[in-house]
Amino acid sequence: MTATKLNEKDYADLSQYMKDKVALFDQALTCHWQDKKYALYQSMSYSLLLPGKRLRPILCLAACEAAGGQAEQALYAAVALEMIHTYSLIHDDLPAMDNDDYRRGRPSNHKVFGEALAILAGDGLLTEAFAILTSPPANVNPLQALEVSNLIARAAGPEGMVLGQALDLEYMGLDMQREDRLHLQTALQAIHTGKTGAIINASLLSGAILAGAGREFIHIIDEYSRKIGLAFQIADDILDVEGTDEALGKSAGKDESQGKLTYPALLGLEQARKKGATLVEEAACLAARLPSRPLMLLARFVMARSS
Amino acid sequence: MTATKLNEKDYADLSQYMKDKVALFDQALTCHWQDKKYALYQSMSYSLLLPGKRLRPILCLAACEAAGGQAEQALYAAVALEMIHTYSLIHDDLPAMDNDDYRRGRPSNHKVFGEALAILAGDGLLTEAFAILTSPPANVNPLQALEVSNLIARAAGPEGMVLGQALDLEYMGLDMQREDRLHLQTALQAIHTGKTGAIINASLLSGAILAGAGREFIHIIDEYSRKIGLAFQIADDILDVEGTDEALGKSAGKDESQGKLTYPALLGLEQARKKGATLVEEAACLAARLPSRPLMLLARFVMARSS
Repeated sequence: MTATKLNEKDYADLSQYMKDKVALFDQALTCHWQDKKYALYQSMSYSLLLPGKRLRPILCLAACEAAGGQAEQALYAAVALEMIHTYSLIHDDLPAMDNDDYRRGRPSNHKVFGEALAILAGDGLLTEAFAILTSPPANVNPLQALEVSNLIARAAGPEGMVLGQALDLEYMGLDMQREDRLHLQTALQAIHTGKTGAIINASLLSGAILAGAGREFIHIIDEYSRKIGLAFQIADDILDVEGTDEALGKSAGKDESQGKLTYPALLGLEQARKKGATLVEEAACLAARLPSRPLMLLARFVMARSS
Repeated sequence: MTATKLNEKDYADLSQYMKDKVALFDQALTCHWQDKKYALYQSMSYSLLLPGKRLRPILCLAACEAAGGQAEQALYAAVALEMIHTYSLIHDDLPAMDNDDYRRGRPSNHKVFGEALAILAGDGLLTEAFAILTSPPANVNPLQALEVSNLIARAAGPEGMVLGQALDLEYMGLDMQREDRLHLQTALQAIHTGKTGAIINASLLSGAILAGAGREFIHIIDEYSRKIGLAFQIADDILDVEGTDEALGKSAGKDESQGKLTYPALLGLEQARKKGATLVEEAACLAARLPSRPLMLLARFVMARSS
């Protein structure tokens, strides 16, 4: 699986690329999000401003650039995407859901602000994301702005991320030895597509759309995103098995103790890792067709996290 | 306070008007919302399809007609507004929030589906509302569609409804005798403006915008909406004091037992009722300037509920 590995130069280039994009993103975030006196805003800021990978914004900006645009054109969408991602983490961590006490190495939102404010902070971030998406910069075509808003709403909504989370809960605690394998595999794909795939897909597509990408480009990046979205979730599942609390910034080993349906649980660690590596290689080939070196490196980065 | 009363003919006309609009709305809801097999959809449908007043959709359609449009133009926004309203009820009823076991005369969402699915159903309805708002019917101008989506997002978000709910929780359990009166009055206005006023405002404005209303019309309907929004919340507070569980479809007397900051608590019942009546009369005068008989009758209806 050397293919999923990044050599030293690749790593250096990718790190610099990600750093540059995160710097752009952080500036934009400051414009779109000012802290205010109420506890609600403190709760929203707490989670939004925790140091994270900012993977979805980076993917959005990389797709915009790959399609010939300037990263600046897609920044507002990148901010909205990160808000939606942050809301999903806050709600997922709630006691009624995954009941996680830690996130990104800090106490999770409800541990600091209480459940009520955590629920409201999530609601607030989700809604604010759509306020941002529906007041795009003046140079964005309103039709494109609507298309991007709609794409993201569908990805985040009850046929996308929310469904993924609901299925994740529904399939928790199954006895995997006794269930039909094909059924489990289908369910797992649906969970992963919803939970992480849909928003990763929307991140890349919205960047491309805002750059005015043509049909062929959109088609390739759509394929690319599906592959890295699934690889990303597989890597996450593997990290949950192999990582430490400290490295993850959240409780490791939770999937198994909660009886979650994951790729390592279904296929075993080795097969899961193989599947991830294949997906990443396919994605890297697609990125080569765009062509985009950052997207090629990002594909490998997704899986390299867990190898 | 005869002014807040509706005579027999007014009542009959208004009832017929509301019935017609609800019929239109119900048809549109069927197009926008199909139940699917997953538990998530059942949880969303359970709350969305419970018989409610559909006040926000009716106000949206009435504003559209008053501005010279066809109700049909604004139906998609009316559906989205009701989804947002429903999401807010589901989340407000959660144990961590207002902890209500009943809503619209039935067990509240989390009592039937559990907390996790109730949180997700709310998230799903909120996001679906924006999916609908950002794929308007073909005859809606994309600029107007963006304006309406943005208006509703800001009304529902962390400077509107979500803030109102957060403040409502923050001010719960105060000893009102010991607090500064002016401070309490300012806080109460902020809570009410956020919790109910903002979405009622957005409902009327979006109907008017979709009909292509001019600046003067928008100005009047904006004023009108602020007055009936506040009157509506005052009526709600009064009903909580005077109503029965059965008539309300939810637990009566909860505001007092939770030590909530309300108009009856701050001003006493009689003064609260007077304030509501004044607001309604001012709103009715504004409706006469549009002119719109339905909006005039609706203004009185808002307060008549509690007299």
